[in-house]
Amino acid sequence: MAPVKQDFNIDLHSVENADISLSEYIYLRIAQLGVKSIFGVPGDFNLSFVDELDKAPQLKWIGCCNELNATYAADGYAKASGTIGVVVTTYGVGELSAINGIAGAFAEYAPVLHIVGTSAMATKRLDYVHNIHHLAGSKNFLDRPDHYIYEKMVDDICVVKESLSDIENACDQIDHAIVQTYLLSRPGYLFLPRNMATMKVPRERLFNQPLALERVDNHPAETLQVVEKILEKFYRAKEPALIVDYLTRPFRMMENCSRLIGALENKVNIFSRPMSKGFVDESHPRYIGCYIGKQSKHPSTSDILETKSDFVLSVGTFDVETNNGGFTSKLPQEHLVELNPHFTRVGTQCFPNVNMCHVLPLLASKLRGDLINMATVYPNDFCLRKKEKAQDETKTLNQRHLVKSTELLLNANDTLIVETCSFMFAVPDIAFPNNTQFISQSFYNSIGYALPATLGVSIAKRDFRKPGKVVLIQGDGSAQMTIQELATMVRQKVKPTILLLNNEGYTVERMILGPTKEYNDIAPNWDWTGMLRALGDVHGHSKSVSVDTCGELDELFQTREFQKPTHLHFVELILGRLDAPERFANMVKEIANLEHASKSIH
Amino acid sequence: MAPVKQDFNIDLHSVENADISLSEYIYLRIAQLGVKSIFGVPGDFNLSFVDELDKAPQLKWIGCCNELNATYAADGYAKASGTIGVVVTTYGVGELSAINGIAGAFAEYAPVLHIVGTSAMATKRLDYVHNIHHLAGSKNFLDRPDHYIYEKMVDDICVVKESLSDIENACDQIDHAIVQTYLLSRPGYLFLPRNMATMKVPRERLFNQPLALERVDNHPAETLQVVEKILEKFYRAKEPALIVDYLTRPFRMMENCSRLIGALENKVNIFSRPMSKGFVDESHPRYIGCYIGKQSKHPSTSDILETKSDFVLSVGTFDVETNNGGFTSKLPQEHLVELNPHFTRVGTQCFPNVNMCHVLPLLASKLRGDLINMATVYPNDFCLRKKEKAQDETKTLNQRHLVKSTELLLNANDTLIVETCSFMFAVPDIAFPNNTQFISQSFYNSIGYALPATLGVSIAKRDFRKPGKVVLIQGDGSAQMTIQELATMVRQKVKPTILLLNNEGYTVERMILGPTKEYNDIAPNWDWTGMLRALGDVHGHSKSVSVDTCGELDELFQTREFQKPTHLHFVELILGRLDAPERFANMVKEIANLEHASKSIH
Ligand SMILES: Cc1ncc(C[n+]2csc(CCOP(=O)(O)OP(=O)(O)O)c2C)c(N)n1
Ligand SMILES: Cc1ncc(C[n+]2csc(CCOP(=O)(O)OP(=O)(O)O)c2C)c(N)n1
Repeated sequence: MAPVKQDFNIDLHSVENADISLSEYIYLRIAQLGVKSIFGVPGDFNLSFVDELDKAPQLKWIGCCNELNATYAADGYAKASGTIGVVVTTYGVGELSAINGIAGAFAEYAPVLHIVGTSAMATKRLDYVHNIHHLAGSKNFLDRPDHYIYEKMVDDICVVKESLSDIENACDQIDHAIVQTYLLSRPGYLFLPRNMATMKVPRERLFNQPLALERVDNHPAETLQVVEKILEKFYRAKEPALIVDYLTRPFRMMENCSRLIGALENKVNIFSRPMSKGFVDESHPRYIGCYIGKQSKHPSTSDILETKSDFVLSVGTFDVETNNGGFTSKLPQEHLVELNPHFTRVGTQCFPNVNMCHVLPLLASKLRGDLINMATVYPNDFCLRKKEKAQDETKTLNQRHLVKSTELLLNANDTLIVETCSFMFAVPDIAFPNNTQFISQSFYNSIGYALPATLGVSIAKRDFRKPGKVVLIQGDGSAQMTIQELATMVRQKVKPTILLLNNEGYTVERMILGPTKEYNDIAPNWDWTGMLRALGDVHGHSKSVSVDTCGELDELFQTREFQKPTHLHFVELILGRLDAPERFANMVKEIANLEHASKSIH
Repeated sequence: MAPVKQDFNIDLHSVENADISLSEYIYLRIAQLGVKSIFGVPGDFNLSFVDELDKAPQLKWIGCCNELNATYAADGYAKASGTIGVVVTTYGVGELSAINGIAGAFAEYAPVLHIVGTSAMATKRLDYVHNIHHLAGSKNFLDRPDHYIYEKMVDDICVVKESLSDIENACDQIDHAIVQTYLLSRPGYLFLPRNMATMKVPRERLFNQPLALERVDNHPAETLQVVEKILEKFYRAKEPALIVDYLTRPFRMMENCSRLIGALENKVNIFSRPMSKGFVDESHPRYIGCYIGKQSKHPSTSDILETKSDFVLSVGTFDVETNNGGFTSKLPQEHLVELNPHFTRVGTQCFPNVNMCHVLPLLASKLRGDLINMATVYPNDFCLRKKEKAQDETKTLNQRHLVKSTELLLNANDTLIVETCSFMFAVPDIAFPNNTQFISQSFYNSIGYALPATLGVSIAKRDFRKPGKVVLIQGDGSAQMTIQELATMVRQKVKPTILLLNNEGYTVERMILGPTKEYNDIAPNWDWTGMLRALGDVHGHSKSVSVDTCGELDELFQTREFQKPTHLHFVELILGRLDAPERFANMVKEIANLEHASKSIH
């Protein structure tokens, strides 16, 4: 994904050189980043803001059923589009409903701009007790309520927070919030007092002062030194390897990464990580597989990296539990080079002033393939797999088979979204067609995320005319969290293919504790295949079906309609309560053993 | 509602005098407060805690579809039961999903104890970067993540926060969290690291150290002085009046208030407020009506209080926008006595050390009815109303008529829950049968609250064997926010009567701005009467029907089945998009005028 190009040719509804409203200013700035849809729920504190949207015909309002869902959708939009996602909520009730989605976007580097309509400045400044609705009040009724209690909560889950109070500074603050959100690729907050929405600002600023979309924390001399250090190590290595990791995408370094890979002249073994699966085409002749420490598909995968390689370049490195195999990745530090948006590390030396966004482009252009040594060639994960024997087609459906079915379903350019559910642990085993975009919330892991995110992703793909279908795989427990957003899919006429794992409860939790306990059950007997009708599909926008055998599913997925859908498809998959990917079962066993061991020590 | 009596006869599953797990300790303490059901969603950080629930057979687990809904349900449970509500969530993802519900409970004085399963102490103490799932990470990848970022957010929306870290202090902290939540009748937080759930604590403490359920901020001498001051004013008054306001209920002063009313010997005019409607039986001979400043039903209502009375005692005073008619209440300060849990005010004199919980019981017992002057008798709101002419029965349904229909539906001891929707503004006009319990979130006003709260209320009524049915009135936009919790109603076999205002969108917002704008539309074509089937009612637990004329609705409501339901009833009411209570339309006009006026000044 390339950085966005600012759009200065935006159609302006308002008259040339006239003043525009602050709301219009905000919308047009957002539109300049290429954003075409924004998400939210109206309320009396943001109503005058939302009402101005007419003036920015470049932007479409996607009203959602609730604010958490809207935030998840904006997150999906951001992850899929490469620009920012925008969510609009109202004071307190809306903004706090959204906060979990913002924390998730922070954790996973999704640039979501959260615009909150707040109380009027005059009300904020009252010097006596005056309790307005949506404001939770003070601990003691004799104290004036603090209108900023909600704004104060979000310091640790956003990279920028601008609270407007004064029209003189408003445009600077707005630009800063948008730019930081975009550049740091994490949530930003813009608090807009209700009385300011219709105040006037000069229109010319939109054209005279372009948004400063370049990272300013550049240290060219040091960066160059570091790049040279890396190249030296690289050229010296006998067995070089490359890991393309998660933060490559949010920092819009995918094209630079492709350039780098091009320069390698097929000499280097290439790996993905669970969260960066698909970032590199898996048909690349030197692609080996997904590196997850001890949880890698084959011991050989980790062996190549951990013991056979003498140089490992990790681009967009994202060293978190769910991406490093629960801390079982053991890459020898002396062989490692890590490019991260916050630092660069070469061996044991850390350069906090040098970051991926400056290193990678330079590295890609300086790298000379002829100076790289040819690493030993290994078969990739999927070649090894071919030896596994096929299952009986009439067999009841199971997650092991679902890996294969998913491969039948996916084509080049499709987007696969997987919820935090048991099947998440099988994703590393799916062979992706070229240019598969994989989206999940697999580090923050808030269930309920994926369904509204699928709405956002679908809208982003449409807005940006990206080819390929959108496929969601999710559990029934997760689906229950945010099910109403199916209605917005119908309303917005998007057509993802949704696979619902009906295994009657929280299988992830059942595997950890209480396999048959009631707390791991969910509300039973949902009419999954009737759900879209209940939620508003009266015009046959969707088709729903329930499947319980392997053969049936594979046949369905190979039909033309599933390959290139003309409808929203909802497929209920009937699965066993304790059917889960092997990787997950093993992981649970291992953790239990570790805990047991640590207990017997004490 | 009387204060709870601690239960020391709780059945103990564990052996006499043996140690019990910390989880069991928490459960049994909660059970001692009379709580019988707790709400939540499991996750790997709270799983060992939830798994211990078996050991406290006094408590039932009510698994909800998501954490916000669970919190709303716990809030409803707290408001309806008089004890506390409990919600259990998991680290980050769950606790933040719940936060909006907690802020609402804080705003409205609902004692909700939020128990959060957090990361293990050993993980918290690691001195290197170690990014675990659900923890959002730090701003810079080189910094250790702060495991307390979520705990830090809630300081301003809870009255107590205990973060367990050490088994030695754990029981003290637990007791403190529970007691403060109960006493201050607002949310409390208990953070339980996952490794501590199964640690052992001595069982005897449950019996040797009862929870200290008395407010300690008692200043007996000053309280007595204040009571005497109040009595003096009271006896001197020619035209005394009483307002029973909202905070009477959360501070469990309803019985004391009844005693006070008893002592008045029918000499004093009595008023409610929008949020305390039904606290006083409206058939009381001296009940006048609901005082909402300029928004009162009849100008005479406010006139009696504001100009005719020379003494107004306000018990449980809750002076907030939605309870005081948008700050239009103008009670002369010199005549006013306010009893609030945080202070007592007599005329212009404020006593911050003297609170309602100590004043009211004393006042009720000291008050001599024979010394009170008989205030002028006035007809009540509902007598005045009789003159309004009836509407045509075949007419399409409208909100004005719905007031009458609701009166047909309600019987003594019923609980009425009204969502923040246009019809909320009509509630003051409904004549309540005796002992109607009215529950809403009419100050914090987070839409989506009422449906899950109805689950909590229904379970509380069943747990405490309270007579009367539960009726919910809510809008379609609100319903879409939290619709999945209907499934938990079916699962838990509760039987509220649900009236759904189908007016195709956010009428409250349409009235304020953009009556025909798209952002005020909601996802269309929901099959409201098919919803319960879709969400799991396969056994005919519920009955759904759609109604569009006045006559039809009234007939339905008078059937035996609706008077004393044996099923969950879901009634879709077809209403006009811009049909709203007069009070609301007037209020909107007034606010627009005020804003216009203030603009033309500047
Ligand atoms: C908001 C939130 N609440 C709770 C959890 C804990 N949790 C993680 S996975 C899971 C179960 C998911 O169930 P389902 O979607 O049915 O998938 P399955 O486990 O059956 O594959 C739960 C409850 C969470 N991650 N996020
Ligand atoms: C969580 C939340 N989001 C947004 C709002 C703003 N809001 C207040 S009332 C309302 C509309 C409610 O619509 P509905 O339930 O259909 O009732 P109606 O207005 O049609 O009577 C909205 C969106 C809110 N109060 N709470």
